[in-house]
Amino acid sequence: MISREVIKEFIKGALSEDIGTGDITTELTIPDNHISLAKAIAKEDFILAGLPIFIEVFRFLSERISYEPFFSDGDPVSSGETIARIKGPTRALLMGERVALNILQRLSGIATLTHSFVEKVEGTGVKILDTRKTTPAMRLLEKYAVKVGGAQNHRFGLYDGILIKDNHIEAAGGIKKAIALVREAKPHLLKIEVEVKNLNELKEAIEAGADIVMLDNMGVEQIRSAVALARERRQDIVIEVSGGVRLENVRELALTGVDYISVGALTHSAKAVDISMKIERIP
Amino acid sequence: MISREVIKEFIKGALSEDIGTGDITTELTIPDNHISLAKAIAKEDFILAGLPIFIEVFRFLSERISYEPFFSDGDPVSSGETIARIKGPTRALLMGERVALNILQRLSGIATLTHSFVEKVEGTGVKILDTRKTTPAMRLLEKYAVKVGGAQNHRFGLYDGILIKDNHIEAAGGIKKAIALVREAKPHLLKIEVEVKNLNELKEAIEAGADIVMLDNMGVEQIRSAVALARERRQDIVIEVSGGVRLENVRELALTGVDYISVGALTHSAKAVDISMKIERIP
Amino acid sequence: MISREVIKEFIKGALSEDIGTGDITTELTIPDNHISLAKAIAKEDFILAGLPIFIEVFRFLSERISYEPFFSDGDPVSSGETIARIKGPTRALLMGERVALNILQRLSGIATLTHSFVEKVEGTGVKILDTRKTTPAMRLLEKYAVKVGGAQNHRFGLYDGILIKDNHIEAAGGIKKAIALVREAKPHLLKIEVEVKNLNELKEAIEAGADIVMLDNMGVEQIRSAVALARERRQDIVIEVSGGVRLENVRELALTGVDYISVGALTHSAKAVDISMKIERIP
Amino acid sequence: MISREVIKEFIKGALSEDIGTGDITTELTIPDNHISLAKAIAKEDFILAGLPIFIEVFRFLSERISYEPFFSDGDPVSSGETIARIKGPTRALLMGERVALNILQRLSGIATLTHSFVEKVEGTGVKILDTRKTTPAMRLLEKYAVKVGGAQNHRFGLYDGILIKDNHIEAAGGIKKAIALVREAKPHLLKIEVEVKNLNELKEAIEAGADIVMLDNMGVEQIRSAVALARERRQDIVIEVSGGVRLENVRELALTGVDYISVGALTHSAKAVDISMKIERIP
Amino acid sequence: MISREVIKEFIKGALSEDIGTGDITTELTIPDNHISLAKAIAKEDFILAGLPIFIEVFRFLSERISYEPFFSDGDPVSSGETIARIKGPTRALLMGERVALNILQRLSGIATLTHSFVEKVEGTGVKILDTRKTTPAMRLLEKYAVKVGGAQNHRFGLYDGILIKDNHIEAAGGIKKAIALVREAKPHLLKIEVEVKNLNELKEAIEAGADIVMLDNMGVEQIRSAVALARERRQDIVIEVSGGVRLENVRELALTGVDYISVGALTHSAKAVDISMKIERIP
Amino acid sequence: MISREVIKEFIKGALSEDIGTGDITTELTIPDNHISLAKAIAKEDFILAGLPIFIEVFRFLSERISYEPFFSDGDPVSSGETIARIKGPTRALLMGERVALNILQRLSGIATLTHSFVEKVEGTGVKILDTRKTTPAMRLLEKYAVKVGGAQNHRFGLYDGILIKDNHIEAAGGIKKAIALVREAKPHLLKIEVEVKNLNELKEAIEAGADIVMLDNMGVEQIRSAVALARERRQDIVIEVSGGVRLENVRELALTGVDYISVGALTHSAKAVDISMKIERIP
Repeated sequence: MISREVIKEFIKGALSEDIGTGDITTELTIPDNHISLAKAIAKEDFILAGLPIFIEVFRFLSERISYEPFFSDGDPVSSGETIARIKGPTRALLMGERVALNILQRLSGIATLTHSFVEKVEGTGVKILDTRKTTPAMRLLEKYAVKVGGAQNHRFGLYDGILIKDNHIEAAGGIKKAIALVREAKPHLLKIEVEVKNLNELKEAIEAGADIVMLDNMGVEQIRSAVALARERRQDIVIEVSGGVRLENVRELALTGVDYISVGALTHSAKAVDISMKIERIP
Repeated sequence: MISREVIKEFIKGALSEDIGTGDITTELTIPDNHISLAKAIAKEDFILAGLPIFIEVFRFLSERISYEPFFSDGDPVSSGETIARIKGPTRALLMGERVALNILQRLSGIATLTHSFVEKVEGTGVKILDTRKTTPAMRLLEKYAVKVGGAQNHRFGLYDGILIKDNHIEAAGGIKKAIALVREAKPHLLKIEVEVKNLNELKEAIEAGADIVMLDNMGVEQIRSAVALARERRQDIVIEVSGGVRLENVRELALTGVDYISVGALTHSAKAVDISMKIERIP
Repeated sequence: MISREVIKEFIKGALSEDIGTGDITTELTIPDNHISLAKAIAKEDFILAGLPIFIEVFRFLSERISYEPFFSDGDPVSSGETIARIKGPTRALLMGERVALNILQRLSGIATLTHSFVEKVEGTGVKILDTRKTTPAMRLLEKYAVKVGGAQNHRFGLYDGILIKDNHIEAAGGIKKAIALVREAKPHLLKIEVEVKNLNELKEAIEAGADIVMLDNMGVEQIRSAVALARERRQDIVIEVSGGVRLENVRELALTGVDYISVGALTHSAKAVDISMKIERIP
Repeated sequence: MISREVIKEFIKGALSEDIGTGDITTELTIPDNHISLAKAIAKEDFILAGLPIFIEVFRFLSERISYEPFFSDGDPVSSGETIARIKGPTRALLMGERVALNILQRLSGIATLTHSFVEKVEGTGVKILDTRKTTPAMRLLEKYAVKVGGAQNHRFGLYDGILIKDNHIEAAGGIKKAIALVREAKPHLLKIEVEVKNLNELKEAIEAGADIVMLDNMGVEQIRSAVALARERRQDIVIEVSGGVRLENVRELALTGVDYISVGALTHSAKAVDISMKIERIP
Repeated sequence: MISREVIKEFIKGALSEDIGTGDITTELTIPDNHISLAKAIAKEDFILAGLPIFIEVFRFLSERISYEPFFSDGDPVSSGETIARIKGPTRALLMGERVALNILQRLSGIATLTHSFVEKVEGTGVKILDTRKTTPAMRLLEKYAVKVGGAQNHRFGLYDGILIKDNHIEAAGGIKKAIALVREAKPHLLKIEVEVKNLNELKEAIEAGADIVMLDNMGVEQIRSAVALARERRQDIVIEVSGGVRLENVRELALTGVDYISVGALTHSAKAVDISMKIERIP
Repeated sequence: MISREVIKEFIKGALSEDIGTGDITTELTIPDNHISLAKAIAKEDFILAGLPIFIEVFRFLSERISYEPFFSDGDPVSSGETIARIKGPTRALLMGERVALNILQRLSGIATLTHSFVEKVEGTGVKILDTRKTTPAMRLLEKYAVKVGGAQNHRFGLYDGILIKDNHIEAAGGIKKAIALVREAKPHLLKIEVEVKNLNELKEAIEAGADIVMLDNMGVEQIRSAVALARERRQDIVIEVSGGVRLENVRELALTGVDYISVGALTHSAKAVDISMKIERIP
């Protein structure tokens, strides 16, 4: 749940970037009191994400907007279907169109790609996670789209989760030392995740008290061995896999017995889906 | 040229989103005075864009950053090559890493895709343009990356260019009427571009005094006819093509004799390129 | 059309500057529930500009404001006439009075001066333009007042229009070179305006492909020669005159056959018109 | 003394308004490393105000600016004199020129007009005051210019001074009642000023304990009577005159024996002075 | 009277600090449409301050909040009493609870401590003042709580009152010199307060024309002598005592005949009062 | 580690609140080029916290500040000792004094109170935690002071930790149900803490998989029983005590065998310590 205040702040920035000192063409050609009906229409199949934000863009521009949504975030939409109808001043509809579509197309793209990964691992019990590889200033919205797509969010930033990586380990003087430093003073509501590159590091991390291990860039065989070794040492250890995850190999990875698979592509490589807005004069 | 102030404002927002109340892991494992050397390394071939911003991220976090770039924006970089070296407090390097890479990978992705389109039309005299299909709050940076990739920018927003589209035409009561309204009161430094869908509209637009016509979503054959008709009516008319442009068909489109081809994909569907940061302890 | 959001942001800053930690006098002398009726009254003749902003100031301070405007922006108002009536909490009326008047008086002053220039050139077909000589942070409002007064806006800033001046020319190495540099890479929706100081520069600019020439600080005779020369070389060249334009000489300049006359005085030397607010107790 | 932080914030807003997404003309015609020398030259006689802000505009745009001022704020400058020299990147000089001049011309205009009023009352012991009739968002700078011109500042806003006007008096139920309400709870560091329209009100205000009386819109004769009456009743009463003050009548008003004369025109009707910037290539 | 805009800005910052990217626990356990009734209950006796702000916190989070206050700011509340009832979405009630209570508890703590001081001096005619020893960013609210508690506000900052302290005196070269400098150019609506440490300084300050003297850190005996001396020299001199004021000695200080006693403890050492929020499901 | 950017932003707000349009007294009495040496002197014994921020206040006001600290954050300081020396423009020293002291006194007050609690539990292995009962807009600084005082931070806000309280439990339909809802979808790096009021709830929480239990407002005897019961059911359960913790009973609570004790008083009831600034003229 993203608060309406945060959304309005985001929209304000986006509209200001696009409209600047005014929409010259619209102001010269369309009278102030001209009213139209706009339809957002899917031009391909996808999972919808961002509809409330899409609508809020137009409400930001005019107090005289009414709307009727035909789908909710998370719904699959088929090419040709009308997603929502929005009625109001034609000027507001045209001035908000591009920004509203840019947001809806991008978030739906992320939800759609996420959903593809989630479907691939269906039945395995594995959960798909996103990463911090998001667009600057859009992380909250992009992580929302990931949840809409059926996956879970990894930490939001460096401040709400602990992940000990190779550079921390080296600077601290080894896995054992790094984990000890963290255990001593970490916020007590946070678990400790440790990134490991091979079975030796895995053993060391588990012995030192890691709550979660991230198997980084390992091959499937190595992951299987790692899972076996980890579960043997500590039954309730949580295992995450990261690096090189693609739609083609995600199910095979899921079947190795890990708990989580994190996928940078969800946010850094999702394509915008195709949605158009058709505006009709109201007679 | 984006001013350093604007870049710092952007970086401030991006870092605040990622770091929030602090990098827990780094603060617990790495001493304040620990110094490292980081290398940004290409993991695939691409056109570089955003290096000055990448470096500014770290300078924002610490006054003790020194750096050595090995490439400039616009240069092709090959997989395996070191793009730049950055030296400074390990904490600053780790806290800035993700944000800096997110920006560099995205901008280089846009420059690289743009460059592919530009190469395809080489020798035809046609210029590739971007669109307003950009990520909210990143338009300035994304349009910069487009220029780095060798294309030109279309208008930045609704305020610095006139483009009369179907909705304007309908609301105004026809192409002739719409153009007349605009001519009467438009800023005198701006040209008038009109979107047309067929040869009849094209004729009407030219007769009414359009400076530029945008052929929207036409097939190649139709575009050829349109170019012939337009040039005949007015030698110096500027012709832009838009809609359905892909790497596969862009050269064919360019050979029809148009002046500009605008491509939404440059910004809405570019994939982030793969760049990693390797941090080495300084003994 | 300036968006209500932008206006509210502007008003917020202006009120904060004036009210700061509170209106001491009003809070000590007037009860919270005291209601009054205020009238804005013209103390001289002028062209009205800024009334919607004037009213918005009071609406910003209280949700219990009602109002009745008797004129619209662009209307001529005579000394003694009531411009609008506003009813609401006396505290809000008194706390907003100065800021609301400061805005209304200044914008009406600009519209009034502009209108005088526009009247002078009536029937000549010449259009009066403003310049970038505006008050910092008020350009949008001041350029709005210019339009209300019947003139057109020149570019808003350095970003939405091209104007090659002497310094650009010198740095580029001549008019021809400067125009060539600009033509090669400029946004295709923008025309090229070139400032020229004499007939030689004028010829060079036209030959190099300028769309618009600005005759800078020339005398009337020289302007006449320039117009003749320019029209002869290119029929559709657009001609702007700038520098030293006053109410006394503007018609003579207009009769030389130029298309546009830009006048810095519209914004940098307009005097505030006299408007008072009279507050009546509601029994 | 306005802090450098406040000035930079102001400049940031002003430059952002003018430069927006970039100075197209300058970026296309002038190389990044091109260096020039700029001179600010007076085109008429005036009192200088705002030179440190003028210079700060360019320093905001580039770290490579050096400068040499030939005058200080408050100095009289004669037409033709060079005010300051600024050296640095030509791009920064051209991009800052308009904003820097807009500020310097406006503030010097205020200082110059103020100085004329101050000269008129020389030798009378009377002090000239400004009012709250300032440009929104520029009050701090405009009041600074008033001080530079030799006058004093009235209160900055509603929060740092008490001025009981007719509307307060009516709402409170009379002068006596209004003053009593204020005396009871006002900040103890503030005096009480009361606006009066005739001798009866004057008497009542003095009896009720006003520290300062403002004679509002009275004629010269009435002012003389008021001064006599006031001084008789309370020797140390402070007397301010307001309303209808012009260069033509200010000395006559000053000779009536009042202490302060407040003049709205200082800020709401000052004309910008004429200053030009000449940029020379450095060979 | 603090404007609703200022309060909303303050609440926005406070909620953003507490909620950040979302209330994880609440979002996972409580449905979006779940409605509850919350009661704010006093857990000790105190003077209420900040109730409108408390309620505004919840209204900021949801448009579906209704409320019923049982007390007003300034009322004494007894332990166990219900202060207000608030009904609305359970999520909004839980997400706003901590911030709303933090504000209400702190402001009521200040009002309560202030009221204790005010009660101690009852009947003496002395007024209690606060100081600038407030929490950064909360001065407006804290000074409001002081007024609710029955005391008066000293100046808000360095900009709305003149207080010449030892450092000013030393830098200026003595009390006489400092006062002369100030008298010459100070805003005419402001009085002059001078801090003095002994009877000699007191005499000098009065002779030089101080309107108010602040007896700084003197003992009771010395204060009595100071009051006698001051009143003898100038009947209407205003006397303020400051430094070392405690509940135990404030009445004795008040009985010395001074006019004002300023107490830093009102804001820098008030303890938060105990208030709890009880949330009940609405069946 | 709080970033210098965040600190500067905080200081900017605090100084703007105090200085507003300028320090009238200082500007009138002290020349711009007057230099002084200031000493911050402890007037009681305390634990120092906030010295870097204290110094940054002055550096914000002038670029000509030099300083010499004699203590570091976390050090015990005795009454009479000089904490730091700061040299620079007298104006900057006086204008920053109050804000700098307000911050240093408050943060040191928190660190000192925290340290008292920490000392009380020395040797027991128990860790003291803060709460979210902080001053709005100062949480980051106050939680920093808690760490300086030797305790640990609880979660920063609702976004970086999970704490299931009675209201969540009731809305979800019981402890078991609430924990199940959270386990299913919570961020995998976060533990689950559950607030319990009695032994039955404790049992249910442990069985349902709580990682941490918070014993809320229990008596010492009940806590002892709870600890015994909890450890028996799950050896590695983490136990936190909350509610009614005072310096007098904290050691007794610590000796019950719990792991953490959270204390709201650390931030909501710490008194500012007494620190003065003495400014000496430099001859």
